[in-house]
Amino acid sequence: MSHFFVDRTHCAHHVIFPGVDIYTLCGDNVMLSLVEFEPHAVVERHSHPHEQLGLMLSGEAEFQIGDETRRVKAGEMWRIPGGVPHKVIAGDQPVRALDVFQPIREDYR
Amino acid sequence: MSHFFVDRTHCAHHVIFPGVDIYTLCGDNVMLSLVEFEPHAVVERHSHPHEQLGLMLSGEAEFQIGDETRRVKAGEMWRIPGGVPHKVIAGDQPVRALDVFQPIREDYR
Repeated sequence: MSHFFVDRTHCAHHVIFPGVDIYTLCGDNVMLSLVEFEPHAVVERHSHPHEQLGLMLSGEAEFQIGDETRRVKAGEMWRIPGGVPHKVIAGDQPVRALDVFQPIREDYR
Repeated sequence: MSHFFVDRTHCAHHVIFPGVDIYTLCGDNVMLSLVEFEPHAVVERHSHPHEQLGLMLSGEAEFQIGDETRRVKAGEMWRIPGGVPHKVIAGDQPVRALDVFQPIREDYR
């Protein structure tokens, strides 16, 4: 396997909530996480010290970040500072998103 | 503008090479960069101390990283350690990609 070129089959796979699968890739100090939601799947409200930025790839989901709630569509992004609680509820269709964690989430390696 | 929810219109815009536009979003310690290539546009061979991970969103491009060359398609990823030279040549169609830089590239803010 190349160190430089990676596809999903090379990633670590975790099921983090029912119907929510992630496929992660680590650099030295940052982690990518491809997230796949089944329709209506939920990432329950939680927080972590890592900052989290992300991009919606396909589908739509409701994001609750701190005290703000938005419907997020493909091409839109989020920025969750460390420690800010957040929750995600997938819409009626499957959802694909990319999350970025800094520092690396050791529990998702 | 929400601090948490961001779309491309809120991002900083730079033209980094002819036909290569980037739209960047900063967190505290990591940067997202949406990259749009015109067909056949080129990011010339260069290197930087920041590590760079990324995901191909649409289209195809030839990536040269260190001494490896690959055709990269939608859904595939790259991981470029700091200091490793790299070059990208877009294919016959427009290309959209997401790059992640850590630490933040101050020249792309």
